[in-house]
Amino acid sequence: MNLYEKHKELINKAITALHNRTFFAAYPEHPSPKIYGETADADGREKFQASMGNKFEELSQTGTSGWMGTEESPYLQKDLGITYPSADVDTLIDNAEKAFHVWRKVSAEDRAGILVESLERVKNRFFEIAYATMHTTGQGYMMAFQASGPHAADRALEAVAAGFEELKRFPSAAFWDKPMGKFNIQLDKEWRAVPKGIAMVIGCSTFPTWNSVPGVYASLITGNSVIVKPHPGAVLPMAIVVAEIQNVLKENGFDPNICQLAVDTVDKPLAKELAEHKKMKIIDFTGNSEFGSYLEGLPGKQVFTEKTGVNSVILDSVENVDKVAGNLAFALSLYSGQMCTAPQNFYIPEGGIDTPEGKVSFEEFAQKFIENINGLADNPKAGPFVLGAVQNKNTCARVADASKLGKVLLESRAIENPMFKDARIATPVVLEVSASEKDKFATELFGPIALLIKTKDVDESIALAKEMAEQHGAISCGAYTTNSEVKEKIADEMSLAATPVSFNLTGGIYMNQNAGFSDFHVTGGNPAGNASFTNPEYVIKRFTWVGHREPAKA
Amino acid sequence: MNLYEKHKELINKAITALHNRTFFAAYPEHPSPKIYGETADADGREKFQASMGNKFEELSQTGTSGWMGTEESPYLQKDLGITYPSADVDTLIDNAEKAFHVWRKVSAEDRAGILVESLERVKNRFFEIAYATMHTTGQGYMMAFQASGPHAADRALEAVAAGFEELKRFPSAAFWDKPMGKFNIQLDKEWRAVPKGIAMVIGCSTFPTWNSVPGVYASLITGNSVIVKPHPGAVLPMAIVVAEIQNVLKENGFDPNICQLAVDTVDKPLAKELAEHKKMKIIDFTGNSEFGSYLEGLPGKQVFTEKTGVNSVILDSVENVDKVAGNLAFALSLYSGQMCTAPQNFYIPEGGIDTPEGKVSFEEFAQKFIENINGLADNPKAGPFVLGAVQNKNTCARVADASKLGKVLLESRAIENPMFKDARIATPVVLEVSASEKDKFATELFGPIALLIKTKDVDESIALAKEMAEQHGAISCGAYTTNSEVKEKIADEMSLAATPVSFNLTGGIYMNQNAGFSDFHVTGGNPAGNASFTNPEYVIKRFTWVGHREPAKA
Repeated sequence: MNLYEKHKELINKAITALHNRTFFAAYPEHPSPKIYGETADADGREKFQASMGNKFEELSQTGTSGWMGTEESPYLQKDLGITYPSADVDTLIDNAEKAFHVWRKVSAEDRAGILVESLERVKNRFFEIAYATMHTTGQGYMMAFQASGPHAADRALEAVAAGFEELKRFPSAAFWDKPMGKFNIQLDKEWRAVPKGIAMVIGCSTFPTWNSVPGVYASLITGNSVIVKPHPGAVLPMAIVVAEIQNVLKENGFDPNICQLAVDTVDKPLAKELAEHKKMKIIDFTGNSEFGSYLEGLPGKQVFTEKTGVNSVILDSVENVDKVAGNLAFALSLYSGQMCTAPQNFYIPEGGIDTPEGKVSFEEFAQKFIENINGLADNPKAGPFVLGAVQNKNTCARVADASKLGKVLLESRAIENPMFKDARIATPVVLEVSASEKDKFATELFGPIALLIKTKDVDESIALAKEMAEQHGAISCGAYTTNSEVKEKIADEMSLAATPVSFNLTGGIYMNQNAGFSDFHVTGGNPAGNASFTNPEYVIKRFTWVGHREPAKA
Repeated sequence: MNLYEKHKELINKAITALHNRTFFAAYPEHPSPKIYGETADADGREKFQASMGNKFEELSQTGTSGWMGTEESPYLQKDLGITYPSADVDTLIDNAEKAFHVWRKVSAEDRAGILVESLERVKNRFFEIAYATMHTTGQGYMMAFQASGPHAADRALEAVAAGFEELKRFPSAAFWDKPMGKFNIQLDKEWRAVPKGIAMVIGCSTFPTWNSVPGVYASLITGNSVIVKPHPGAVLPMAIVVAEIQNVLKENGFDPNICQLAVDTVDKPLAKELAEHKKMKIIDFTGNSEFGSYLEGLPGKQVFTEKTGVNSVILDSVENVDKVAGNLAFALSLYSGQMCTAPQNFYIPEGGIDTPEGKVSFEEFAQKFIENINGLADNPKAGPFVLGAVQNKNTCARVADASKLGKVLLESRAIENPMFKDARIATPVVLEVSASEKDKFATELFGPIALLIKTKDVDESIALAKEMAEQHGAISCGAYTTNSEVKEKIADEMSLAATPVSFNLTGGIYMNQNAGFSDFHVTGGNPAGNASFTNPEYVIKRFTWVGHREPAKA
């Protein structure tokens, strides 16, 4: 049985799920021994620990000129000491160019089979990837497992499914028979889905696989060769994924250079040189707006970006103010505000928030919010694991500086992580800012920073949230209202700013979270990014339909 | 019955046709009295003649500040004297902004119904549009009827069908039910296809409706308001289309400003000011590469272009050299080489072309080609009608200058048009150029200009055709070969340059022609343009999917 036949049912299910947008997950998100095996966790941990201080020798790509690696664990605050094979840009491009001319001729079915098989291999390494993710990004264990493992694999499968569907959208051949009156003109026509060429995927330091695999798999399914350029601070999770892709390619007789890893360092970055190379046709990027916008401006490239945004929460009226405060405190604390979907600006009317028990004032809500943040941080069974660690030292500096922005309602502090005494930790800082001080909240303050903004009324809250999204980008929005007219106004106005809204979330679901096969991640319609996981545009732009024709044989 | 119900069957047929890519046409291309009515032609001609020297008063848009019009007939070489209501940019944008907020809330079904109804109204004016097209573009009667009438309407319907399908691609709502072990997380989700805002369509002087209606209908079906900015030299054909769209909008209670006409003059052009306006979100453009590339570079705009290309013909081996020479002579002569799909560079191996009767030398083929061009031009029943007239005086100057490019094999000359003694006519000029003089053939020589280029062999021919397409763009390619390996090499190499190839055409079908619902026009994959009529990308990029969600009601 070939790999397409092996995975056909899953691919078809994934395509159906893309269209239904009801719940679907191919890879179980719970790190349960019943699902993944009794020793899977311990084995993964051991494999990760064994990789520290060593060369990563699993890659099959050619042309290695040296070894490099500069990862550091935010939990240990020490170097991981892992090095990866490095190559110069010309070697990477030459490899990718040769591999492209092989891969582009592989059928959509065979590509899909190989790619889904690689995800099955990656599945066997979810725990190892989880530890690699923890010790590069600072994510807590559960998030590291889910986001870098099953959720990332689901997003990769989603891209494969979307690409496969588009490649099959038009017939490979058709007979065109045009009646002209006394005779017919008859042509044999054919259409080819022609991949663009060489693609690259530039990863970020906080979600190294989740934000990278959609681009990798989307470019591969559509026939492009791919160079994966992870953030120098978070290489290992993607190195494992690339190794497994290369393994399946090799086993099936294909050039492993179809998907290469390109490592670099902060001091000698490769991204710009790779991106500007005339052979580079497709660029996927997750990261800061400045570099993202520079990439978007490169002529003759197809660029897909997820940049930064200013995410808003609009508070109007609630059923249960304590549940709301608890939900938002968790949303802010989760991975210390280092998610691109984390809330930052909380708009509260000066008249307060409507509840069944009457108005809750700005100050009362702030108090409840702070109590919930503290309650979570100080719960030793939850705080350290929800907060995780801070990936980048600069984020800690930003948190410290934030206190200059307004009236400090809650100071950031360190808490102890019982497992990692050296972990880099910062609990959320909460500030009060006036609605008139737009310059203070009109920028992404990456990290555990919340601004409570007093507005005249909900209309001003909506206008500000919309303006922030339109001008500075937004990836998520939370809104609380029990009034159906206000709800539709928020839904309508924020949709014009291309921002998805989570309404009235309480309990175990947060505005930060979004689900493969259902929630489009980033819409592509505001400055937070020009792409979306996974809408049709995300795969269609990676290839070109070209039709040829000739007179039909009589 | 509402308009969607009225046209539902046609819309569904059109969607099916998009996917089958077999022959489909909704609007009969033959100007037959049996189809269009005994007096349709005479009536249309009369209406056109009556419009000359008068105000065009059919538009319902608001805010007119004056009247202008500078069209001139290439057949009469005199001003048409038709004036159109003009408005300043702020008025056009304000109108479009107000209309947008109405139109965006109209259902996909109602939009589709209104738009298809407008095409039915336009159908009643195909002959009037044909005469308007002749006397602005210089096209012959038959082409003017077909291209501006039924073929344009088919392309518009194609855009409506493609847009409608994409708007329906994802559910408007879904229940998301995620098992979490002991409980389920249940969300009600909804997705909105949010139009980008205000769109504009910049027309060209040679195919005023055919090249404009796809963008107009694609932007309208996806909920954007549209400003149509025709070329000042060819306004009337689109003015009629816009008037009919406005009529149907008004009859159905909608603001006619949903689709406005914006007229300008060569001396005071509006395109740049409109395009750069911060509210302008979508721009469709057909025209020269310089302005097209400038538009593509505007930040924050979704731009769809058809620019210029260098179309090649590769001659390797043929079944019947006379039929090939005849076909290519016609392809070059049709509308005097003023089609974006017309052949320009003819690559012929120095060893000659293989035929069943042996080699035909470069010189012999050139002779046959020239004889066919002369035979067509000098046939009074065909020449004047196939050649039409030259739209722009500059094209005549370019033809005259072309003789400096190489050895002149055939001089351009004037022939007489029995119906229009003052018609601006130039028969094709044919030159011999060496393959080494790349600077001479590496640019579009718009008009009836053919370069016969002597190459070492077919491999050099292919390499040059590919290089021209990759570097300078190409919209069509003709190739003649009876060798299946050469054929696949051409198909493969030209597909990498995103150029569709017509193989071995003889008889009544030409490389210039392409059919709605089957041939993608322009691929979007080379410098000749970034868009394609009508691939999914062409409609998807005009709106953004935005999803909202909230806990499901218990």
